[in-house]
Amino acid sequence: MPKPNSELDGQWTTDWERACSQRTQRMTSSIIRELLKYTQQPDVISFAGGMPAPEAFPVREVREACNYILKEMGPQALQYGPTEGYPPLKEYLAESMQKYGIPAVQGNILLTNGSQQALDLIGKVFIDEGDTIVVGRPTYLGALQAWNVYGPRYITVPLDDDGMQVERLEGILKEQKVKFIYILPNFHNPAGVTLSLERRYQLVRIAAKYGTFIVEDDPYGQLRYEGEDIIPIISLHKENTIYLSTFSKTLSPGIRLGWIVAPERVIVKFVQAKQGTDLHTSTFVQYIAADICNRGILRRHVKNIRRMYRERRDVMLAAMEKYFPPGVTWTRPQGGLFLWVTLPEHVDTGKLLQVALQEEKVAFVPGVVFYPSADLGGHNCMRLNFSNASPEMIEEGIRRLSRVLVREFG
Amino acid sequence: MPKPNSELDGQWTTDWERACSQRTQRMTSSIIRELLKYTQQPDVISFAGGMPAPEAFPVREVREACNYILKEMGPQALQYGPTEGYPPLKEYLAESMQKYGIPAVQGNILLTNGSQQALDLIGKVFIDEGDTIVVGRPTYLGALQAWNVYGPRYITVPLDDDGMQVERLEGILKEQKVKFIYILPNFHNPAGVTLSLERRYQLVRIAAKYGTFIVEDDPYGQLRYEGEDIIPIISLHKENTIYLSTFSKTLSPGIRLGWIVAPERVIVKFVQAKQGTDLHTSTFVQYIAADICNRGILRRHVKNIRRMYRERRDVMLAAMEKYFPPGVTWTRPQGGLFLWVTLPEHVDTGKLLQVALQEEKVAFVPGVVFYPSADLGGHNCMRLNFSNASPEMIEEGIRRLSRVLVREFG
Repeated sequence: MPKPNSELDGQWTTDWERACSQRTQRMTSSIIRELLKYTQQPDVISFAGGMPAPEAFPVREVREACNYILKEMGPQALQYGPTEGYPPLKEYLAESMQKYGIPAVQGNILLTNGSQQALDLIGKVFIDEGDTIVVGRPTYLGALQAWNVYGPRYITVPLDDDGMQVERLEGILKEQKVKFIYILPNFHNPAGVTLSLERRYQLVRIAAKYGTFIVEDDPYGQLRYEGEDIIPIISLHKENTIYLSTFSKTLSPGIRLGWIVAPERVIVKFVQAKQGTDLHTSTFVQYIAADICNRGILRRHVKNIRRMYRERRDVMLAAMEKYFPPGVTWTRPQGGLFLWVTLPEHVDTGKLLQVALQEEKVAFVPGVVFYPSADLGGHNCMRLNFSNASPEMIEEGIRRLSRVLVREFG
Repeated sequence: MPKPNSELDGQWTTDWERACSQRTQRMTSSIIRELLKYTQQPDVISFAGGMPAPEAFPVREVREACNYILKEMGPQALQYGPTEGYPPLKEYLAESMQKYGIPAVQGNILLTNGSQQALDLIGKVFIDEGDTIVVGRPTYLGALQAWNVYGPRYITVPLDDDGMQVERLEGILKEQKVKFIYILPNFHNPAGVTLSLERRYQLVRIAAKYGTFIVEDDPYGQLRYEGEDIIPIISLHKENTIYLSTFSKTLSPGIRLGWIVAPERVIVKFVQAKQGTDLHTSTFVQYIAADICNRGILRRHVKNIRRMYRERRDVMLAAMEKYFPPGVTWTRPQGGLFLWVTLPEHVDTGKLLQVALQEEKVAFVPGVVFYPSADLGGHNCMRLNFSNASPEMIEEGIRRLSRVLVREFG
């Protein structure tokens, strides 16, 4: 091969900033994201991520599945596959969705690269610049990251212990056209609260009345530690709801596998969009998930995870009760991975994170990142994750965090 | 769980068509795509896809890699990972890119879900509605599918046996602002031609002169069956080129793994965009690829594939020589997976596909799909793939196709 001609090197360079689309200008990197990099250090106890406990991954079962698949159907598992997803996995999901109360057949399902891709596809297919979307106050950061590039306006609705205050929707929808309502009904990320049954009925009635559809994001539905399952919104409103879930919190987040349930004509649009986006989700990963699901392993495995995370939640709640100074309140999630802490009004959790990392080597996510803009609130709030650290580390981490709080305002 | 309240069912349904974004209106489903579904039937010999030979997948080696990874680092391999990609895989790619003549360090690399995602990220980060992009005539269908949703204008430049006629670029760039030039230098999909060394120099000179960057799509670079490697464009123009490649044609397309090489500040933009799109590419799949690469398996494996595909190309070329009627011409690719056939002007390969499927059970892709719009040409052309079918099937398929051609105009 001939040597490169260096005559052009350094002579001229693209103005990459100017070349970027307007969309890219909307992608912002936050100072908090930079700070959160320090949470990776081994001596930091981090309540910041949303990571499952790695010791809970069914490693042996995944290995058995890999061996079986590569022995019995290796060439197919490594070949291109349909954009919609691997049919036996869609079939399993349709059946398991039905058991969970969601009417679905294969044609209602699309496999995605985790729920994050489902959020992006929703943005791509539905959001025009200036469209209005209703989200919770706070809401899931990943949804904001997925959608901001498409340029929507957000209207926020506050949450309380029963989830989004959906009774406020009537006033909003009466006054303006809303493209869709985004809701995390179970064990909300970041708030940890669950939408009550009454509010689910109320939500679908208001949405139907004003002709707006619902995006129901349910990554944690399987991870309930107490109380009874509440019927999914899509069951009440199946022609008008797009439902998202994922294998990230039950099987493994690293395989990047989630799914959408929606009316068939909506799935057709998502399939078109996904085809141009990445052709299809990894065939091999879908074969693994299908094998693990069909052998009944996932169902058993989820029971173990529930037990493990329930204990961790309890340890965190007890430690907070014991160590946190007065003036601090928090939610008591019935499931999921997160709880939400509210500090006195004058505290800025962004600044607090810096102190917590430097002085006590403990991390959390400051509340403001879960709001479409910083003026909407959350400055005195924080999200804590209880799935990733061991019970001992949780106890120790809450002790450290308490010391920071006590020094700050206790 | 309470029973769903069916009071709302069927009462009101979202007007999903109207709810779609303008972006979605640009996603078109073609009649040809529908026709191509028939190519899946087992009695059809298909030259239509772009699939590697499944018997060439290193199934045993992937199995060994899975066992090793899940035994030695299972929890990490199943956990969330960095958006940029798995560092040891980036390190391997950086080194192998350097050997291939491309100056790259880890910070220049982003792992993607196949090259298709790289194309989508380029669209997301760079294309504003109305931006002008230069592409070949014909060009890669997947790039058009990725970019159409972002609403660019295309200017097309014809190809000949030495690739894109880059001498025509001067006239175009002099007259209008072009965002980037998209080029497939090696064994072009669909045309099968390779951009000559002289034209590579000419291309970077013109691009530099007019301040436009280059997207170099190189999925088949490793699959050269004769002649000498020609230096990649990015080596001549490293600050102004975005280079794409993939494991799809060498290791497995089903794992969905590709990569981008670009200046570090461009990678930063892609990482931001990818974070909102799907967080990161499957950790597990990246561990598998890293293991297979680092044990030197991929390099050996690629040698076997080259031998296999060279034979298939030769069989196809010989069969065409033997059976095709006069008036048909075709390209003679030095590598890759495809060749391009041109029939007499009056033939419409879209209609011909229907006849070929019905009467002779043989399939190809009609040329028009590789043009941004149908009026730009290709109606009398077709793309043939020679990697997927066995030599015997290739011989038989060309014989069948010849019968169709002879009946049509022979």
